[in-house]
Amino acid sequence: MTRVGIVAVGQSKFGELWEHSLRDLAVDAGNAVFKDLDTQTKGNITKKNIEGLFVGNMGAGSMAKQSHLGSLVSDYVGITGVPAVRCEGACSSGALAFRHAFHTIKSGEMDVAMVLGIEKMTDIDSNHVLNALMEAGDFEWESLAGLTFTGLYALMARRHMKEFGTTRNQLSLISVNNHKNGVKNPYAQFRGEITIEDVEKSTLIADPLRTLDCSPITDGAASVIIASEEFIKKNKLDNVAWILSSSAATDRIGFFNRRSIVELDATKLAVKRVIEKDRVNMKNIGVTEVHDCFSINELVALEDLGFCEKGKGGKFIEQGEIKLDGQIPTNTTGGLKSIGHPVGATGVRQLIDITKQIRGDSLNQLKNVNQGLALNIGGIGTTSVIHVLGKD
Amino acid sequence: MTRVGIVAVGQSKFGELWEHSLRDLAVDAGNAVFKDLDTQTKGNITKKNIEGLFVGNMGAGSMAKQSHLGSLVSDYVGITGVPAVRCEGACSSGALAFRHAFHTIKSGEMDVAMVLGIEKMTDIDSNHVLNALMEAGDFEWESLAGLTFTGLYALMARRHMKEFGTTRNQLSLISVNNHKNGVKNPYAQFRGEITIEDVEKSTLIADPLRTLDCSPITDGAASVIIASEEFIKKNKLDNVAWILSSSAATDRIGFFNRRSIVELDATKLAVKRVIEKDRVNMKNIGVTEVHDCFSINELVALEDLGFCEKGKGGKFIEQGEIKLDGQIPTNTTGGLKSIGHPVGATGVRQLIDITKQIRGDSLNQLKNVNQGLALNIGGIGTTSVIHVLGKD
Repeated sequence: MTRVGIVAVGQSKFGELWEHSLRDLAVDAGNAVFKDLDTQTKGNITKKNIEGLFVGNMGAGSMAKQSHLGSLVSDYVGITGVPAVRCEGACSSGALAFRHAFHTIKSGEMDVAMVLGIEKMTDIDSNHVLNALMEAGDFEWESLAGLTFTGLYALMARRHMKEFGTTRNQLSLISVNNHKNGVKNPYAQFRGEITIEDVEKSTLIADPLRTLDCSPITDGAASVIIASEEFIKKNKLDNVAWILSSSAATDRIGFFNRRSIVELDATKLAVKRVIEKDRVNMKNIGVTEVHDCFSINELVALEDLGFCEKGKGGKFIEQGEIKLDGQIPTNTTGGLKSIGHPVGATGVRQLIDITKQIRGDSLNQLKNVNQGLALNIGGIGTTSVIHVLGKD
Repeated sequence: MTRVGIVAVGQSKFGELWEHSLRDLAVDAGNAVFKDLDTQTKGNITKKNIEGLFVGNMGAGSMAKQSHLGSLVSDYVGITGVPAVRCEGACSSGALAFRHAFHTIKSGEMDVAMVLGIEKMTDIDSNHVLNALMEAGDFEWESLAGLTFTGLYALMARRHMKEFGTTRNQLSLISVNNHKNGVKNPYAQFRGEITIEDVEKSTLIADPLRTLDCSPITDGAASVIIASEEFIKKNKLDNVAWILSSSAATDRIGFFNRRSIVELDATKLAVKRVIEKDRVNMKNIGVTEVHDCFSINELVALEDLGFCEKGKGGKFIEQGEIKLDGQIPTNTTGGLKSIGHPVGATGVRQLIDITKQIRGDSLNQLKNVNQGLALNIGGIGTTSVIHVLGKD
């Protein structure tokens, strides 16, 4: 079975981009990834080599009155004709599109595929955005009851505090770290450092979560081009981030139906497959991108992935283990909190930033990184998608 | 590379099912496919064997305020935990989900996968449904200009009449044939025969298309279970419809940007791949399901697929070649016109009906059918997806 690697990456600016339509964002990310493709392949490979397109998007139907993004994006990035599909799994749509492209290449159907994650969120008012985001939850039993995602994650945070003694301060450190890492990120929505005091004085949204615990509403698109080992070798491409594992799992959609609300079974199931099926040694993971849509979710992710013990996430963070010089540098370019969270783009953006750490051109480049892991979560751990990338 | 086959099929009733919610439809189709799985495998294979779920759906976000259908459906059909994703490509969402499942099995990632296409359309008023359907077109340049899909297909019909002399009568014969084939279909929304006069006296919607040229707004879900050749052989399953070809292509999303509006380049490109890449001999195709969302689209499909010459579709239909005893029996169970068109379910429902013709248990069973072809179209030929199924 062929191996598959990432050969080019590119993204649009992330932010409140009122002058950019949905299709503008696709064009920006397309141009960026084609430019990197040109650089990485010294002009030998172009968009003419792309045989399929996989778009990650959650809510363009509700937020931009536009579905059928496979065709729209292939049209506007200039690869009309190729098979194209949109994949959706709420906030994990980007990683799911990537996973689909990966399996399509592995199946032998094609050698080169483009993945593009995209979300345009700021053309409608924020109430409509919150309603659209709740489509990721259980409409009949959660949305209609008035729950929002901040509310759901607040339940998780409060329970985690009660069971494990996790503190307000520990949650704040997560946002502080992400903002610090994002300062140099030219694509980030927010590039300013924040303090623990800033977090703790920010507006309470759903107790205990405050504004600065929450990732923002963001427009943006991100793209990668992946290829089969045969293609990569034939074209003598180096500087490739190889896909060592792709794993996904789901949980019951209603948060009230879960076995536990302080750990996410979908993540635990997905990481089990990474270790047992794809034989990844988690000790080799030198960098991680986790889904900090809310601060508590970063903490729970670190526990569920096994980087620290269940219940010890707060302490782990307090000890600085997620910092650039810590045990497992996390969200080294700013995370969802600082970079922004254009829902369908996030999973692809995470893979771009892991790829850059593997290639050696990250804005906060770590030394000696051989493998990196990205965890993209849909809903409240309703879907968890993990990818591990590595050097040859 | 492993071959893949369809081992079980099942669907819900199609219609205006006001007493059925989105998740009820999923449960109905799930129960139906699990029942067929039990029958086909003599109880040896159950839903516990399913390793992944691929949901086809276009507009649950806009029409039912519910996205994240991978998780919702896996939860409610009782396979929580498996990797699950929703695939969307407007009205071709069902076939795209099937295609994704097919490639995932071919990649070696899993042996058994479930595909479920679904759409719940009647919980909102018809104006909102028409707006939601226009998400399949170009929002900025078509929807905002007031175009509907009936309007777009009317342009195609009018032009086809002008260029090739296609007649009102020929279009009417398509609807008449589909209704006739659907009379015995227990799942169909409309089971009554109609006459040419009925079609020609029905309300004009967008000249020349009338009510009885148009498929209806429908609730419904359809599901198939597919498996790898290794799994099928190991478990000694017979009565399998093998997937001989999966092909997809796209075109520019704006209908005004097309090379031609009387033939669909996406279909022509997709069928070229079926013939050249997958080496299907079109002469062996004994039955076809084509996407008669509007009568003109069935006619154009027959031409684009090569069952008759371009421009000769009207004559071909007039000669009775699409009837059950014709040259290429088409939509033998009623088509979208009679069975209904729950958008995301249609592509899967077509594959169910081809599978039954291959297995020999169709309600209008043809003799000596070895291969069948299904064409599922998204938008106005913006995405075309073709699958060819056959006996071993």
